[in-house]
Amino acid sequence: MGGLTDQLREFLDAHRVGVLATASKAGKPRQSVVYYVRDADRLLISTMSERLKAKDARRTGWASLSVRADEQPYPSATFSGPAEILTENIGQPTARVMQQIADVDEPPDPLSDEALAEIDRVILAISVDRVSAVTHMGE
Amino acid sequence: MGGLTDQLREFLDAHRVGVLATASKAGKPRQSVVYYVRDADRLLISTMSERLKAKDARRTGWASLSVRADEQPYPSATFSGPAEILTENIGQPTARVMQQIADVDEPPDPLSDEALAEIDRVILAISVDRVSAVTHMGE
Repeated sequence: MGGLTDQLREFLDAHRVGVLATASKAGKPRQSVVYYVRDADRLLISTMSERLKAKDARRTGWASLSVRADEQPYPSATFSGPAEILTENIGQPTARVMQQIADVDEPPDPLSDEALAEIDRVILAISVDRVSAVTHMGE
Repeated sequence: MGGLTDQLREFLDAHRVGVLATASKAGKPRQSVVYYVRDADRLLISTMSERLKAKDARRTGWASLSVRADEQPYPSATFSGPAEILTENIGQPTARVMQQIADVDEPPDPLSDEALAEIDRVILAISVDRVSAVTHMGE
């Protein structure tokens, strides 16, 4: 792992949406806005196993997330690394992402892996090992 | 051309930054936050010819831009299509992008193509022919 500094971890924790990019089968970038949470130096995104972003991540083993602030000058950075699809022990991270979406103080009660499997929910995890396009982060 | 509706054109005009994605030589997505302006169904971004995003666009002929609003529920969409690097007649679009960056009412006086070439400025143009990952756009 590498690339994440305390300042970048704080930046990640202060925000909650980013643009996920994966590579399509044709080698083209595929982008969508997603909510995320940070777990140490991994970024966790709740998605469904049948979504193209999940299939891309499984097939290529790589993804990146671009996060920017909401106001000018829009501090931003892109976090990239090996990506995998998790289906075990995902109750708590899924609940944390749901908390971000609902914008509430406490996460909802975690669902079991079995219950999440029934609704096709998985976690796309990026192990950040590269940070690029860092802008307006101060110092 | 296809994919852009009046509602999506209005959404693009109401915002000014997005996350540009191109494919690296290794086939990995490369993302960075950029200012843009819309010209009919093209999205125009000011960059430098030596930037990796410009090299990617020139080599692959493709790029996408993910644009999101700044407040929950973060309406967003991804605009993709053939991409090219322009070096002629770029004074006006470059001035329009600079206006977005400076957040002022009027664009600065346009520079000549020659003056822009001296500072390596080019326009990366995406001809939008695909819109995906549209979220929270009302309707």
